[in-house]
Amino acid sequence: MRLATIRTPGGTRAVKLEDGTLVDLGAEDLGVFLGHAEWERAAAAASGPAYDAERADFAPVVPRPSKVICVGHNYTGHIKEMGRELPAYPTLFPKFADSLIGARDDIVKPPETDALDWEVELAVVIGRPVRRAGEQEAAAAIAGFTVMNDVSVRDWQFRTVEWTQGKIWDSCTPVGPYLVTPDELPGGVRPALTVRTTVDGRVMQQDDTATLLFDPVHLVRYVSTVVRLNPGDLIATGTPAGVGHARDPKVYLTGGESVVTEVEGIGACVNRVVRP
Amino acid sequence: MRLATIRTPGGTRAVKLEDGTLVDLGAEDLGVFLGHAEWERAAAAASGPAYDAERADFAPVVPRPSKVICVGHNYTGHIKEMGRELPAYPTLFPKFADSLIGARDDIVKPPETDALDWEVELAVVIGRPVRRAGEQEAAAAIAGFTVMNDVSVRDWQFRTVEWTQGKIWDSCTPVGPYLVTPDELPGGVRPALTVRTTVDGRVMQQDDTATLLFDPVHLVRYVSTVVRLNPGDLIATGTPAGVGHARDPKVYLTGGESVVTEVEGIGACVNRVVRP
Repeated sequence: MRLATIRTPGGTRAVKLEDGTLVDLGAEDLGVFLGHAEWERAAAAASGPAYDAERADFAPVVPRPSKVICVGHNYTGHIKEMGRELPAYPTLFPKFADSLIGARDDIVKPPETDALDWEVELAVVIGRPVRRAGEQEAAAAIAGFTVMNDVSVRDWQFRTVEWTQGKIWDSCTPVGPYLVTPDELPGGVRPALTVRTTVDGRVMQQDDTATLLFDPVHLVRYVSTVVRLNPGDLIATGTPAGVGHARDPKVYLTGGESVVTEVEGIGACVNRVVRP
Repeated sequence: MRLATIRTPGGTRAVKLEDGTLVDLGAEDLGVFLGHAEWERAAAAASGPAYDAERADFAPVVPRPSKVICVGHNYTGHIKEMGRELPAYPTLFPKFADSLIGARDDIVKPPETDALDWEVELAVVIGRPVRRAGEQEAAAAIAGFTVMNDVSVRDWQFRTVEWTQGKIWDSCTPVGPYLVTPDELPGGVRPALTVRTTVDGRVMQQDDTATLLFDPVHLVRYVSTVVRLNPGDLIATGTPAGVGHARDPKVYLTGGESVVTEVEGIGACVNRVVRP
């Protein structure tokens, strides 16, 4: 199944994609919908009002997650090429719901930065409440996957030892357009998918999620050891080599670019960078 | 005014303290109440049902903030005694709503750590939506102050370069019991107050909020440059010297201790550390 949250004149709605049409799931957004214990059955059975998928205005796939946990240093190839040791533990940092935008929204470059950067990521969407999840429980808690562009404000990220202030900028992080359930993906809850970023058509990042050091099930287990995960929570699994900040010379988003962050089999965030 | 969120048989309620009694403010919690544009007037006029303040069961002063931003390295004396340069920017890290507990709740030591530590902090509670606040707007956005014990899981905090995974443990961070409005505090929105931690009666931390490098108004301006602040959001302003991890030998909470984190004129979190 492919699920999403769209904006309508009456507010946001949770929908599923079926035969090119978006069918209303009877909830105001996908976070609320995933909070129902029987959401999979309800989604399969849904036959609510329909919307034109071609004209959909996508909200963040989950507009108000209770938490967004991002992972750094997770693509094996990138870690090795940088000459680093493979880390023993995932590096975690946050975003908040107010950081998120829809998969087709403009990224408004904050005037306070000259170092705006992209990061394509496979993101896990949680579908059941879990804490200290075992292997099977963690796998079962994965509702599906979506695409996140972990847009980063590098000058603020590196002002101090903590990255947080470069990662939580308001309304800068595209996520969506669809949640795709694991049964539709090669590898299921440990999908093997190409991830890619293009900027104005030029490929900037490309790798395979099969090379993730800490896979989605491992990450759900690890994060849920620390803090409960709620339906709709997001875990972004990290980005591969090729960010603008690591290039020589460095490349940043200055306004006017079209940025496409894509995960094969799931979809793409397609965002224009604009100046305020 | 002194405001709080208490637990009642019918769910949480926002209350104000008046003549030793807690008066219902007509909202399910203080975060919801602060979302009303006229909350100050409504609080002054409130005459709802009353509860016994002596027997109050305090919830986190705001149970579901949209974000909790914590600040590191902010007490001038502590920075200088460590021989460090005064930083140019505040260091920010996160907590999430699921990390919070009430001011009298037990701190359940996670079995996954042997390095549980205390950090007393003056915390700002936001009372108006702000983004890129100027000086006066930032001052006006401060609903008041409360006490936070930024309980930290040091072994996880230092597993990687990012502190997040040591800071967001589920249900480990006491916050409350009261929000105290700035008009009741010496220094107003830049209060000069003694902060103190005692563990089983032994003073472990003591300093004065007048020595904060980045004061509450500065922090509201800084954080709101990055991301909107919503009513009920919390900014913890940092902790002074004396945490257990920095002692020689190190001292950690192992279970059985009584930890009191206190800000003069505001109140205290009084928490027992228990093993699960």
